[in-house]
Amino acid sequence: MLTRNAPTSQRPPQDLPEVLHDDMANALRALAMDAVEQAKSGHPGMPMGMADVATALFSRFVKIDPTRPDWYDRDRVVLSAGHGSMLLYAVNHLLGYADMGTDQLRRFRQLGAVTAGHPEHGHTLGVETTTGPLGQGLATAVGMALAERMLNARFGDDLVDHYTYVIAGDGCLMEGISHEAIDLAGHLKLGKLILLWDDNGISIDGRTTLSTSTDQLARFEAAGWDVMRVDGHAYHAVTDAIAEARGTERPTLIACRTTIGFGAPTKAGTEGAHGAPLGPDEIAGARARLGWSHPPFEVPDDVREAWAHTAARGRTAREAWERRLSGSGRRAAFEAAMEGELPADFDEKLDAYKRELSQSAPKVATRKASEMALGVINAETELTVGGSADLTHSNLTYTKGLMPVTPGNFAGRYLHYGIREHAMAAVMNGLALHRGTIPYGGTFLVFSDYARGAMRLSALMGQRVVYVLTHDSIGLGEDGPTHQPVEHLAMLRATPNLHVFRPADAVETLEAWQLALHAERTPSVLALSRQNLPTFRTTHSEENLTGYGAYVARKPERRRDVTLLATGSEVELAFKAADMLALRGVDAAVVSMPCWELFEKQSADYRRAVLGTAPRVAVEAAARFGWDRWIGERGRFVGMEGFGASAPAADLYRYFNITPEAVVAAACDLITCA
Amino acid sequence: MLTRNAPTSQRPPQDLPEVLHDDMANALRALAMDAVEQAKSGHPGMPMGMADVATALFSRFVKIDPTRPDWYDRDRVVLSAGHGSMLLYAVNHLLGYADMGTDQLRRFRQLGAVTAGHPEHGHTLGVETTTGPLGQGLATAVGMALAERMLNARFGDDLVDHYTYVIAGDGCLMEGISHEAIDLAGHLKLGKLILLWDDNGISIDGRTTLSTSTDQLARFEAAGWDVMRVDGHAYHAVTDAIAEARGTERPTLIACRTTIGFGAPTKAGTEGAHGAPLGPDEIAGARARLGWSHPPFEVPDDVREAWAHTAARGRTAREAWERRLSGSGRRAAFEAAMEGELPADFDEKLDAYKRELSQSAPKVATRKASEMALGVINAETELTVGGSADLTHSNLTYTKGLMPVTPGNFAGRYLHYGIREHAMAAVMNGLALHRGTIPYGGTFLVFSDYARGAMRLSALMGQRVVYVLTHDSIGLGEDGPTHQPVEHLAMLRATPNLHVFRPADAVETLEAWQLALHAERTPSVLALSRQNLPTFRTTHSEENLTGYGAYVARKPERRRDVTLLATGSEVELAFKAADMLALRGVDAAVVSMPCWELFEKQSADYRRAVLGTAPRVAVEAAARFGWDRWIGERGRFVGMEGFGASAPAADLYRYFNITPEAVVAAACDLITCA
Repeated sequence: MLTRNAPTSQRPPQDLPEVLHDDMANALRALAMDAVEQAKSGHPGMPMGMADVATALFSRFVKIDPTRPDWYDRDRVVLSAGHGSMLLYAVNHLLGYADMGTDQLRRFRQLGAVTAGHPEHGHTLGVETTTGPLGQGLATAVGMALAERMLNARFGDDLVDHYTYVIAGDGCLMEGISHEAIDLAGHLKLGKLILLWDDNGISIDGRTTLSTSTDQLARFEAAGWDVMRVDGHAYHAVTDAIAEARGTERPTLIACRTTIGFGAPTKAGTEGAHGAPLGPDEIAGARARLGWSHPPFEVPDDVREAWAHTAARGRTAREAWERRLSGSGRRAAFEAAMEGELPADFDEKLDAYKRELSQSAPKVATRKASEMALGVINAETELTVGGSADLTHSNLTYTKGLMPVTPGNFAGRYLHYGIREHAMAAVMNGLALHRGTIPYGGTFLVFSDYARGAMRLSALMGQRVVYVLTHDSIGLGEDGPTHQPVEHLAMLRATPNLHVFRPADAVETLEAWQLALHAERTPSVLALSRQNLPTFRTTHSEENLTGYGAYVARKPERRRDVTLLATGSEVELAFKAADMLALRGVDAAVVSMPCWELFEKQSADYRRAVLGTAPRVAVEAAARFGWDRWIGERGRFVGMEGFGASAPAADLYRYFNITPEAVVAAACDLITCA
Repeated sequence: MLTRNAPTSQRPPQDLPEVLHDDMANALRALAMDAVEQAKSGHPGMPMGMADVATALFSRFVKIDPTRPDWYDRDRVVLSAGHGSMLLYAVNHLLGYADMGTDQLRRFRQLGAVTAGHPEHGHTLGVETTTGPLGQGLATAVGMALAERMLNARFGDDLVDHYTYVIAGDGCLMEGISHEAIDLAGHLKLGKLILLWDDNGISIDGRTTLSTSTDQLARFEAAGWDVMRVDGHAYHAVTDAIAEARGTERPTLIACRTTIGFGAPTKAGTEGAHGAPLGPDEIAGARARLGWSHPPFEVPDDVREAWAHTAARGRTAREAWERRLSGSGRRAAFEAAMEGELPADFDEKLDAYKRELSQSAPKVATRKASEMALGVINAETELTVGGSADLTHSNLTYTKGLMPVTPGNFAGRYLHYGIREHAMAAVMNGLALHRGTIPYGGTFLVFSDYARGAMRLSALMGQRVVYVLTHDSIGLGEDGPTHQPVEHLAMLRATPNLHVFRPADAVETLEAWQLALHAERTPSVLALSRQNLPTFRTTHSEENLTGYGAYVARKPERRRDVTLLATGSEVELAFKAADMLALRGVDAAVVSMPCWELFEKQSADYRRAVLGTAPRVAVEAAARFGWDRWIGERGRFVGMEGFGASAPAADLYRYFNITPEAVVAAACDLITCA
């Protein structure tokens, strides 16, 4: 048995005797194995393996104040290996986060507990981002580190100067998103990003040598990172490495050689420690080996006091920062940025521009209309940060005067994300989570496939991220079926807490942008056309009609014989069909449905009034999937039945029979036409 | 102007004078720029830049016979940079593929032409895989190279001995999937995989230095590849490099320094050459610079003859191979494998096992039922090749006796794909495209997000790939919302040409496997439960009822008062609800709907009979999106309205109100209950 030292509360934690470092780490190990045992579910191996690294990181470096979890200038610590959630919960418990009492550790993975299976941002204090899907935390942290540098460039060291630390496992580094993320971080020289890799050589199936032979250090070096390797169970080696990493101009990988399930007598170093409770015998053996004689969930005072140092150090730092903020001439601007406040006259300016659009009625692609809207938006607010996954001139995400962010120079507002859709989405999540900007980024709608993992997290975390997804149908033409979305609108509409806008003209596009920028807890997709579309909203409306999700865009002359439902580029077809139907004595209403999710939120009365009781025909150059909700059992759908093809857009619309004539034919199947 | 040499048909192409190599390449350049100009759409820069490399590759090395495009032992050449499709079409034109006449080059990117915007497998001869979404070709090629080695291990050098060449651009190497693919290829030591990187330093937004600083050679070396760098416009340097690469035991990256749009007087070396027609002046200037005086689409005889050598060499090789095949004692087995033929008594064996299951009526998770089915399947046929993205013991994809494939040893049938869902899907596409195996691979259903890009290509190409996607709902429990699929069934069901099976018990699971293995032109998803489910199919049926997509699983006693629709784990809930309704005097039918796509294909009469005319309630632990198709306007849905949560599964079902009681309540809202 180890003997305990005298209370250490007067000494800074870096001077703690080695034995107390060990016990600080052992406290994390014990809480993790006990909580997993209690839950009969979870991952003890990673917290036990990384307990020493976490102790070194928090005891010496991390600048956070658990009493102010949202302090803007805190360090960000991201647990990319989210299955090791008990590591973070144990740390946060010992740091004294208000929500993380022992009761919550005892209720690990139970309904309503803050100790969810994987860390969930917004659900639990001190969780910077939701992790679990591997690699996401790392890529999101790149966005946070980028946000830090961009806001530092704007507001200076006094207000913004913190580190971003990531704890990642083998899985994070095997996922493709890690490549995109580390390339971008290395390129941009995000020197304040430090990655602690839990290099334990074990994954779920067994030893990592089953599936990888990569030299990770060489790989990160190739991507422009500084790299080090340390014994992850040697406190001083880890602290020295972190101290060195903090001083360099490039991001740093610290490969921490660890033993998964450190302390477990038979399961340590094996996949048996990874994802299941250790069992009472193994836990008893681990307690003996670690010299940890305390009952489950109990931590002795001296260890608690040692952990309290980090919280105290953070509080001191936060108070000093608040004094600097109070004395800063940039306080108001800084706080407005961090709160994400749009300028007071923002909506007025947008409304004035909408009036112009209604008058000039441009015939432009909605991607072009988006560029025009962004021209106004980016001039009115400094919050927006644009970018594209190497399709700037196709997505039209750049506006005049935006400077690009370049390696080591973070004063710009435009990001060349490279051909990295997944990292772009995750980096935008990181930018939004950090706060201080509103990120938007572009790619083709079909390549939302590549970004899905991170887009889902935008929705799950409720972050204000705007996806500018152009070339939204077969209307993109010659590039063919690999580039033509068919099922993507359905995929995105099925995702909870995501607004999918498919505006039909320049006015609706502006309205969609306005809604997206105001949706502080919901990400938005703008699905935009490549091809030109006429402006049909030629009468100015102060109301944002897109905000209703759907509305009657063309009222019937007398009675409503049939209702034509459409979105985006197909609203034009519906108008033409309505004109053709009029010649055949049929009075058609046209309903534009730019955002199904917002329409769902309207009153039942409103929805009934818009949809009407007449037979319905929907037209959208996409899969039918989901449309039955609106057209009902006897409704008709004009759209895609399979994948697209390579040809000029007009030929494709004819070939796939998505035409005014097809809409008329469908309508006349339902009602009597002259 | 260059002078022409005498006809060279008697000389092997490696002895062609340098000037003819240049003109072989110039022919590709001219055809590419002329076709793009004619189409007013496309990408001339890449074909012009890589023309010399393609000439070196095909003239000296590639073993294909254009008269037998599907010859099993041909080399596979994959154009991962699919936007450079005209490079491949020009090559295939000059090699004499039957479908690639000049008329097709003139109709580049037009409706119905084989010269689609991006190469489409199955649409055009000599296109090994559909490319365009960047990185896919590279990862798919890893699967092809793996198939070659696995079949070589089984059938020997006489029958299987060919190379896989990939032409990839900067975009392919920036995408995350490239990391997963090259790691796996390096690990497995796929020495016959050779990657020719079009290292032109240009992407769509401008110079690649806008967004990347990675040292690609160092990166590939870190992943276990051999690497070389050559001048991509120096024929002999390229041929020497390829010759060397063919001799090594590791996959090889050859970085080919090229000038995008080589020859174009003002646009060469700039993004202006990438993705738009060059225009008449630039084309005229390029013709002058290249010394190519021939009219559009015309290629002089000597150049055609030089290209014909490759075809002739391939024909000779193919004929020699056919003689070896004729003399081989393994011919029947080899051909059966390559044709993907299941054993004659396969269905009989499966049927016998189904009878057993109906009698024993095990209460097992459908993932376990899948493992049991695979136990029979993998014993009955050698075609299946299993694997998992590091979730073997969760997906239950391994069966007794399967040996793993290990680095340099390809005799096994099980793949440890690592934590690489996207590459797993693409590698399975490559295995299927190569022919000789039926690949299946596992991950959690929620992580289909990570694999989406490649899964879509499985569907678009119509490949027999089976996705074993377990933990298919909140039923996975404690791992929480990041691991609980909600919208994924909708996402997959909305995808054309994909069968999404969600079997409800062990019998349906076996039936789903049977259907998946017989679906030669359609990939399948098996969405499987973590939690145990009772077998309700306790009466043996020789017919595969899952093949109807939906069927009445519980007939009403007398009349049908209400119809309960369900899939997978919720069929049990529907049965319980029906029992409870019976106590309240309501006669309910239960319809199991394991595969919507197959149900859609049944006759309208059958569908009407199954769905009935009584009010309907659907229950599925997933998003409602798509269900309105089946429940109609007055139907009810019991399921998820948002994301899940972390808790034991039973608690979650109660919390989200997905219970027999909720189904009963929904039914009694529609009809009169006692």
